[in-house]
Amino acid sequence: MTEHSRLNKIKSVSDLKAMREEEMPMLAREIRSFLWENVNKTGGHLASNLGVVEMTLAIHRLFDTPKDHIIFDVGHQSYVHKLLTGRNNFDELRIPGGLSGFTKRSESEHDCFGAGHSSTSLSAALGFAESDARQGSDAYTVVVLGDGAFTGGMIHEAINNCREDLRLIIILNENEMSISRNKGGFATHLSKMRNSKRYFKVKNATHGVLDKIPLVGKGAANLIRDTKQALKNAIYKSNYFEHLGLYYMGPVDGNDYSAVSDVISVAKSLERSTVIHMVTKKGKGFKESEEMPQHYHMVPKGGLKPEVEGFSANLGRILSEKAEVCDDICGITAAMPHGTGMEVLKYNHRDRFYDVGIAEEHAATFAAGLAANGMRPFFACYSSFLQRAYDNIIHDVALQSLPVTLCIDRTGLNEGDGATHHGIFDVSFLSGVPGLEIYTPVTYESLGRAIDLAYERALPCAIRYPKGGENADIKDNFYSNGHAFAPYIRSDFDKNEDISCVIITYGGIASETLRAEKLFAEKGIKCGTLLLEKLKPYGDIAAALADTLPDTCDTVVFLEEGIRNGGAALCLYDKLRAYPVFDKKRYIVHAIDDDFVLGEKGRTLRQSAKLTAEDIIHSYFDKK
Amino acid sequence: MTEHSRLNKIKSVSDLKAMREEEMPMLAREIRSFLWENVNKTGGHLASNLGVVEMTLAIHRLFDTPKDHIIFDVGHQSYVHKLLTGRNNFDELRIPGGLSGFTKRSESEHDCFGAGHSSTSLSAALGFAESDARQGSDAYTVVVLGDGAFTGGMIHEAINNCREDLRLIIILNENEMSISRNKGGFATHLSKMRNSKRYFKVKNATHGVLDKIPLVGKGAANLIRDTKQALKNAIYKSNYFEHLGLYYMGPVDGNDYSAVSDVISVAKSLERSTVIHMVTKKGKGFKESEEMPQHYHMVPKGGLKPEVEGFSANLGRILSEKAEVCDDICGITAAMPHGTGMEVLKYNHRDRFYDVGIAEEHAATFAAGLAANGMRPFFACYSSFLQRAYDNIIHDVALQSLPVTLCIDRTGLNEGDGATHHGIFDVSFLSGVPGLEIYTPVTYESLGRAIDLAYERALPCAIRYPKGGENADIKDNFYSNGHAFAPYIRSDFDKNEDISCVIITYGGIASETLRAEKLFAEKGIKCGTLLLEKLKPYGDIAAALADTLPDTCDTVVFLEEGIRNGGAALCLYDKLRAYPVFDKKRYIVHAIDDDFVLGEKGRTLRQSAKLTAEDIIHSYFDKK
Repeated sequence: MTEHSRLNKIKSVSDLKAMREEEMPMLAREIRSFLWENVNKTGGHLASNLGVVEMTLAIHRLFDTPKDHIIFDVGHQSYVHKLLTGRNNFDELRIPGGLSGFTKRSESEHDCFGAGHSSTSLSAALGFAESDARQGSDAYTVVVLGDGAFTGGMIHEAINNCREDLRLIIILNENEMSISRNKGGFATHLSKMRNSKRYFKVKNATHGVLDKIPLVGKGAANLIRDTKQALKNAIYKSNYFEHLGLYYMGPVDGNDYSAVSDVISVAKSLERSTVIHMVTKKGKGFKESEEMPQHYHMVPKGGLKPEVEGFSANLGRILSEKAEVCDDICGITAAMPHGTGMEVLKYNHRDRFYDVGIAEEHAATFAAGLAANGMRPFFACYSSFLQRAYDNIIHDVALQSLPVTLCIDRTGLNEGDGATHHGIFDVSFLSGVPGLEIYTPVTYESLGRAIDLAYERALPCAIRYPKGGENADIKDNFYSNGHAFAPYIRSDFDKNEDISCVIITYGGIASETLRAEKLFAEKGIKCGTLLLEKLKPYGDIAAALADTLPDTCDTVVFLEEGIRNGGAALCLYDKLRAYPVFDKKRYIVHAIDDDFVLGEKGRTLRQSAKLTAEDIIHSYFDKK
Repeated sequence: MTEHSRLNKIKSVSDLKAMREEEMPMLAREIRSFLWENVNKTGGHLASNLGVVEMTLAIHRLFDTPKDHIIFDVGHQSYVHKLLTGRNNFDELRIPGGLSGFTKRSESEHDCFGAGHSSTSLSAALGFAESDARQGSDAYTVVVLGDGAFTGGMIHEAINNCREDLRLIIILNENEMSISRNKGGFATHLSKMRNSKRYFKVKNATHGVLDKIPLVGKGAANLIRDTKQALKNAIYKSNYFEHLGLYYMGPVDGNDYSAVSDVISVAKSLERSTVIHMVTKKGKGFKESEEMPQHYHMVPKGGLKPEVEGFSANLGRILSEKAEVCDDICGITAAMPHGTGMEVLKYNHRDRFYDVGIAEEHAATFAAGLAANGMRPFFACYSSFLQRAYDNIIHDVALQSLPVTLCIDRTGLNEGDGATHHGIFDVSFLSGVPGLEIYTPVTYESLGRAIDLAYERALPCAIRYPKGGENADIKDNFYSNGHAFAPYIRSDFDKNEDISCVIITYGGIASETLRAEKLFAEKGIKCGTLLLEKLKPYGDIAAALADTLPDTCDTVVFLEEGIRNGGAALCLYDKLRAYPVFDKKRYIVHAIDDDFVLGEKGRTLRQSAKLTAEDIIHSYFDKK
C-alpha cells in the first residue's frame, strides 16, 4: 500500500491547480499506484491510463472544465481525469450504477461527451469548438486520442473538417499500441515522424538548424537560398497533419511533466487548431505492464488469469481447423484479434488473416470484395461495434448476396463496459437486412454447426453468440437431456408433455428461462422452453414452431435479450400469426423496450431490463 | 445527331482493343456525343461520365475484364465502361429492370462489384487484390475514384490497409468537384499537389530537376549533397499517399488519351500498389456542362428544368426562416447541400451551415457535439446514406439524449437510382434506437410542424419525408377535406362513418390507399385511411389509435413503403395488441418483406414490392 498524501488532498480540480509544479512527478506516482491497486481489483483499462497521467495533470492545470472541454477518444483512458474531478469511487468502477469505465455526461459536468466506441472524439470536439466559435466563447476544446483511433475512418472525416482558426488542441497520444500493435500506412508514417526528429523542445521551436546553414561562395548563394526555402517548406509542411492544414508540434515525451506542460501551454497560446504529438509509455510505472501492455489493456475483474475457454476462443479454434480443409476460408478482425479469438488464424493461417484496424466499415466491404473474388471471409466483431458496418452489410454484402459470415461476439447485456458495449441491437438491425440469415448458437457444438452451415449455404449470414463461455445448465437441459424439436429448435421438454406455458428464447438469456420454469412449477404450472439456434429466415422458424408447438399450451412467452422494436419476438410473431394454432394463444414478449439499460446500483442488468424469471412469472399472472 | 461510326463497331471490348491508338480521340468524341444525346433524354449522371472517357478507354485497352477487375467508386461514372462492355441500351438507363445507373454484378461479368454509395471502392478493391495475391492470380485490380470519395472515412480505412506489393492501381480522378465543390484539408492538399508540379510526364519520371543542380565551390559541396538528398526525400516522400507507403504518379491530364495510356502502362509494369493522380474536366466536351458541371452532375429525366418546389426545398426554407428567430439552429449536410435543400442556410446563415463532405458518420457525431454545447443541429441526409451513421445515432446522439434532428430525405422507393438508393430501411433501423422520436410528414405544413415540435421537445428525433413534392390527392383528402383524429393522426373519413376496413399508413405511399378505397368501394366495402404524421414513441400512437378506431371496422391493413422486419407495422402492432378493441380485428400487413426491390421491366417499384391498391384488395379477400 502506497501513501497517497498528495492525491488525498485533491477533492476537486482547484486543489490540483493549487499545487506546485514540482509536486507533479510525485503526484503522478501516487496516481499510478492508486490505479494499480484499484484497477487490478475491480478490473478495467489499466495500461492506457498509466500512460496518460502527466498529460491529464497538465491539461487540468492549464484548462478549466467544464467551461473548457476535454474529450477522450473511447474514454477508456479517462480514469485519471475522473480521479482529478472528484470521482475517487474506484471500488465501484464498472459495476451497474457505479463509476463508468468511460466518460459519461450524466456522471459529471467535467465529462462533456460520452464515448465507448473509438474514433468519435474529434467529430464531437469539432462540434464543441465550432459552437464555441459561433457563440463567441473563448473556451478551448482539448481532445486526447491514441494512434489506434487513426485506423478508424471517422477521424479522417473529422480532420478533413478542421478549420485552422478554432481553439482546438488535438493531442495524439502515440503509445505504439492501441489494443494490439497498430499496423498499416498511418502507423508506419507516425513511427517515421517519431524517429526522424529528436524530441521536440518548445524553446527551440522557433529557430531550427536551417537558420545556421552558412552562406558560402557567390555562385552558391542563390542556389542555397532557394534550397533552404524548399527544405523549410518540405520540413515544416511535411507530415500528414501539416498537409491537411493543421499546425503540428512534436513529438514530445508524454511522460515528462514539464515537457508536456510546456507544449500544451504553447498550443494554448496559439489560439488555433493544433496537433500535439506525444509519445507515451503504455503501462508506464510498473515493470509488468510496461513489458506486456497488451495484457494490461483490459484487466478482468480480480486481475489477470490464464485465457479462459469461451465462445471467442472456440470460434478461432473452429475456424482455424476448418481453414485446414477449406482453402478459401479467411478471417478478418477490426483490431480485436485477441478479443474475438481470431488471433489463432494469424498463427495457423497467416496469409488468410486480416487485422484491418478499428475499421468495421472497411472490414465488411473488404470481406464483400474477398467473397466476390472467390474467398469465404468470416468477419468477427463485437455486436456493438458491428453497428458501424450496417450500411456496408446492406449495400456491399446483402444486396450482392455475397457469402460473408459475420461472427458476432459479446451479444446481449454486458456487465462492466456499460451501455455502449451491450450487444442488444444486432438482431434488430440485421432482421431488416434482406436475405441475411441469423444463427444463434449457445454451445460450442452448435457454434460449429452454424459455421458449417454458413459455409455450405454460401449466403450472407450472421452467427451471434454470448460473451464468455457455455452455460452448463443450458447445455444440460437443452442438449444432454434436451430434445430436437425441429431443425434449429431445441427443447427441454418432450412433445408429449402436458405443457401449458412455452417460453421461446435464444442466446445466453436461456439460463433465465430454466429459473422461470422452476418458479412456474412452484405455482403448479408446467412450463417448457424452446431454444432457437437460428432466427432468420423468420418464416422457416415460424413454420417449424407452428408444427411443433404443444396443443396444450395456452401461453407463449418470448424472452429476448435484445431490443424489442425490430427484434426476433416481433418479427417471428408477424409470421406465427398466420398459423391457426396460434389463434387462441397469448403471446407475451419480454425484451428491452426502448431502453439502453444503463444499469442501476444493486440490481443486475437483467433486472434493470425486466428480463428475469420473476418478470416472466409476474407478467404471466398479471396479463391472465 | 452525330455519326458514331467507330462506337457502333464496338460490340465488346475486343473490338476496342483492335482499334488503333490514333482513333481514340475520335472515339472519345463519339462516346461523348452518344452520352450527351442519351442521358439528356433519360436522365442520369452526365458530367462525371463525360470526364472519364479517355481514362475508361485506356483501362479497357490495357486490362482484360473479367479476369482483371475494374471497380468504380459509387459507380455513377461507369457509363463509358458499360458502353464498352456490350451495354448500349441507354434508352433503358435507370428504369426498373433496365440498365442500372451504377455498376451491378448481376448486369455484367465486367461489373465485378456493385456500388451506389461513395467511398467503398478501395475496400472492395483490396478484397479483390488480396484474394488474387492469395490465390496466386496475376490479375490486376484497377479502382477509379474521385476526390470527393476522400471526404469519406472508409477510403482512409482502406488506404491504411494497402500493402505495397499488390497489383492494385488506384486512379484518383480529380475533377475539382464531386457533387458540390469539395472543401476541407484533403481537397486543399490535393489542389496544392496539382498546382505545385507541372503535369507529370512518364518519360521524365526517372530524372528530375534535382540531378541538374550544379556542384559549385568546395565548402558547399557536402552541404549541397546533403541538401539534395533531403530535398529529394522531401519531394519524393512529400504527399499524403507517399506518406502512407503508396507509390504516387501524377498529376496527369486525364483527358489526354496518350498521357493517360502511358501512365497506366507504367503503373501496370510496376506490379505494385500505385496511385495515379489524374486531373479531368467534369462535363468535358460541351460548353454547357463544362461551365456548370454541378447542373449536369445528375440530369433529371427529360433534361434540366428550373428547381422544383419539393420537400427538400421546403426543408431548407423552413429551417432558414426558423433560424432567423432561433439563434441556435444550425444545418449540416454530407456533401448534399443542393439535394437536401440545405444550401439556402449556406446563403442566409453562413456561419451556421456545415457541409462536412461525404461523411455521414462524422456528421451525426459532429451534430451531437454541437448539441452538447448548446446548439440545435438539423442534419439533412438521404435515407439510404443515413444508414452509415447508425452507430453514431445510437452511441453519440440517442444514448446521450442530445437534441439532434435527423432530416431524412428520399424516403420510400426511389425510381432511377435503384436498390442502393431506396429509403426503405430508416424506419426499421431507427425504431430500435431508444428514445428517438420519428415524424413522418407528407405535406410542407406538417413538415413545418414536425420541425417546430422537434425544436420544442429537444430530444433526439428523425423527420422523414418523401422524394419530390406534395401529392395533391393526399393533401386534399387528409388535410383540406380530412379530419384530425388525434394528434399526429389524420383521416379521410369521419368517426361516425360506417367503416369496415381501415388502412393505416404513413409517407408518400398514402396516395395508394386512396386508390384502394375506390377499389373497395366498387366491391361495396367502405374503407378509410388513417395517415400517421408520427410513428415513435409507438406506445403513444397505439394509444391514440385504440381510442379512435371505428367500432365498425373488422380489418386493419397497415401499408408501409419500408422493410417489414422491424418496421412500423410490426412495432405498432406490438403495442396495439394490448388494447381489447383490437382483439377481433384482422391485421394485414403490406410492407417490403425481406426484399431489396430491385425492380422489374414493365412493372412499377410499388408493383414489384406488392404495395399497390390491387395488392391490398387481393389480400383482403384472400385472407378473409
